[in-house]
Amino acid sequence: MTTPPSEVRVALLGAGTVGAQVVRLMNERADDLAARAGAPLRLVGIAVTDVEREREPWIPRDLLTTDAEGLIADADVVVELIGGIDPPRALVHAAMAAGATVVTGNKALVAAHGPELHDAAAAADVDLYYEAAVAGAIPIVYALRESLAGDTVTEVLGIVNGTTNYVLDEMATNGSTFDDAVAQAQALGFAEADPSADVDGHDSAAKAALLASLAFHTRVPLENVPVEGIRGVTVEEMAAAQETGYALKLLAVARRTTSPDGISVRVGPTLIPADHPLATVRGAFNAVVVESEAAGRLMFYGQGAGGAPTASAVLSDLVAAAGHRVRGGQAPRESAYARLAPLPASSQRITARFDLEIDDRPGMLALVAAVLARHGISIEAVRQAAHTDPTAYGDELYDVFDDAYDGGSDRDRDPAASRESATLTITTHRTDEGTLAACLAELAGADGVRAVLPVRRVEGV
Amino acid sequence: MTTPPSEVRVALLGAGTVGAQVVRLMNERADDLAARAGAPLRLVGIAVTDVEREREPWIPRDLLTTDAEGLIADADVVVELIGGIDPPRALVHAAMAAGATVVTGNKALVAAHGPELHDAAAAADVDLYYEAAVAGAIPIVYALRESLAGDTVTEVLGIVNGTTNYVLDEMATNGSTFDDAVAQAQALGFAEADPSADVDGHDSAAKAALLASLAFHTRVPLENVPVEGIRGVTVEEMAAAQETGYALKLLAVARRTTSPDGISVRVGPTLIPADHPLATVRGAFNAVVVESEAAGRLMFYGQGAGGAPTASAVLSDLVAAAGHRVRGGQAPRESAYARLAPLPASSQRITARFDLEIDDRPGMLALVAAVLARHGISIEAVRQAAHTDPTAYGDELYDVFDDAYDGGSDRDRDPAASRESATLTITTHRTDEGTLAACLAELAGADGVRAVLPVRRVEGV
Repeated sequence: MTTPPSEVRVALLGAGTVGAQVVRLMNERADDLAARAGAPLRLVGIAVTDVEREREPWIPRDLLTTDAEGLIADADVVVELIGGIDPPRALVHAAMAAGATVVTGNKALVAAHGPELHDAAAAADVDLYYEAAVAGAIPIVYALRESLAGDTVTEVLGIVNGTTNYVLDEMATNGSTFDDAVAQAQALGFAEADPSADVDGHDSAAKAALLASLAFHTRVPLENVPVEGIRGVTVEEMAAAQETGYALKLLAVARRTTSPDGISVRVGPTLIPADHPLATVRGAFNAVVVESEAAGRLMFYGQGAGGAPTASAVLSDLVAAAGHRVRGGQAPRESAYARLAPLPASSQRITARFDLEIDDRPGMLALVAAVLARHGISIEAVRQAAHTDPTAYGDELYDVFDDAYDGGSDRDRDPAASRESATLTITTHRTDEGTLAACLAELAGADGVRAVLPVRRVEGV
Repeated sequence: MTTPPSEVRVALLGAGTVGAQVVRLMNERADDLAARAGAPLRLVGIAVTDVEREREPWIPRDLLTTDAEGLIADADVVVELIGGIDPPRALVHAAMAAGATVVTGNKALVAAHGPELHDAAAAADVDLYYEAAVAGAIPIVYALRESLAGDTVTEVLGIVNGTTNYVLDEMATNGSTFDDAVAQAQALGFAEADPSADVDGHDSAAKAALLASLAFHTRVPLENVPVEGIRGVTVEEMAAAQETGYALKLLAVARRTTSPDGISVRVGPTLIPADHPLATVRGAFNAVVVESEAAGRLMFYGQGAGGAPTASAVLSDLVAAAGHRVRGGQAPRESAYARLAPLPASSQRITARFDLEIDDRPGMLALVAAVLARHGISIEAVRQAAHTDPTAYGDELYDVFDDAYDGGSDRDRDPAASRESATLTITTHRTDEGTLAACLAELAGADGVRAVLPVRRVEGV
């Protein structure tokens, strides 16, 4: 074994919100970090695009440089906090080729080019860390990559985007409209001026791909993650979910499936029972529930974004990386031996809940039940509310299990009822998405069906 | 570098509930474990006291032996799941002296003899893992030892004993008495025939010592952890806590303090606000909330006991241990550089809530407030209920901040009130335990004070 280094040389790429906190913490906690890593961590430079820009007062101006490549050549560990694909992709490759350990918080880069980066890390025999890329301060990468290495994960459900959770929580708690809640999140700094990456679910999808890769020891291309954002969620839908004992959350869902064999990964607005641990995750917090065969249910909860929390995750990777430089050993390499196929959206098995706005007249439930039966979709529960306001739900509730209910009677409706509209809320048993789509298309064209309202997946039941 | 081993030889000491699950999982998941560790894990023997006893059908009888010492000499990794101090203590020392990595789930051993074991591991240059010793399947040792290595933990609050959480939850939810709830936990297998280790808080105290050691990078002798169990908790107290917006949980509390400088560690029945994440931990689940400077609040939740969940934690350590055997490197060694003094109970800073049963007559609140003021204890809130039944709380609530309330008036009582009893519920601002004890002693002897009812710490406010 070679002599341990007397210090670990750290290059920082990017000095934005997270980068600035990393500099502050490395400075304030130099002694603690040295004790834990086994040697002092020395910040040798900070690559930025503009060295003249005004920055936090603790950023040492003499460490700023625009020469990222030159800086990389001088470092043991390169911390990439620039964000986006280019130039980080080329810089991370350059760092690994130069023999440096890489720590990144760049979910877009790792989700889009993870396999290529893992291959390059293996070829250069260096470590790649990305705890900060998923759920900020929550050590979920660690948990999946190391803590659960002896177990078999069956399912991961995560609230992995704080902006959208804030928006949905605001809608649920205070009855704000989507637009008002987004504006409020922007005013509080939770949402960006252009909130699309968050509200359209793309940020969550990148994290879903990373979580699924880690949980199931397989590569999950980002393009295999079907995404639906939260722009279509209404206050009325939130209220209806609450009244029926559910919460609506933007969830990243990854599940190991055996029939068909593969993994099912998706992101979308999802109904979960009000007593599920994820239902009580408030504001901009993140949480990930992992179900595994031996450990059972585990939940990890914390701040998913923000300068200091994300910097905490970066520093944990940095201490681990430095520790390996000092004491030998290495981070777990990519574990993709399982080679599981991500299922296309159309064959993912889902439990769905949707509303049908129908004519309030005898025979409608029979008609709808017959269409579902024809498509082989079993009904878990039907709730019918007779009224002209589709947001005011009644309390007539039927639990109709499997095929025990044949849809042949209309015991629920008074034949003398007026021809107003009514709302049928249908929760299915598990079916596949393609079948559901065909069924919904037929329902949409059926006589007496006025509209098919939001179709939501149900998880955690 | 030497050639990586073609297999990792594992010796198991003990084949009880957890050990049997470890054997099952090692067998069922041999391929996964080999892929993750980098080499096959080979179980070379299982040390038991009685090889003839009937065991789970998957336990290979030809691996059973009573010769633990001989087995240890043949192993790369020794997994100790016997429990208790002797013989595990000597066997773990023997294993380390022989150059084996040790994985243990033995909280009693690590809490009582951790420093000695860590020193021996360092001397022999071997790794010591004990994830399964704290909170079962929850990877909290990993989180504190590695994930939060770059952060500064300020506080750890944990529900780390599932039996007591089950008992308290049963009392709170269904109004069961303590005895009935314990009997029910025993019937369900959550509690042992002699439940003292759980209900008297000793199991939680061992875990509190381990959590505090890891969180604050210092050694915490078990004898420095003041413990109070849950035998004194009544249904009436649970109900009163709920009515006033609190939950009563048996908490392990560890806090970094600056005045005086040190750490405060304790275990006892503790009031937490009903909207605190720990308040909603149900049944036999465990959860640990970690507050740290950069990451903010993190929570880890899962099953804290049981064969399979605990075996999951053992296997995660086993995979890490085997990985280091195959690929080099080592587990983080004991990090005790901070050398912080555990504060004695009497100088721990606490927020307390207690009930006084008093004569229902004018002047009592003034008298009580004067005693508190004389001891320098500030009042956060006073709630007074006039009745003869100390369990039926009224709704007269005064929030009295700091010293703004001088206790000189009795605006709350009608001088014409009858001489029945009343209950004063007092929540203090932070004070130290010694001061509180002196104040309560004076109150207990004061004219008109009939009884001082349960004194509880308040956390998470």
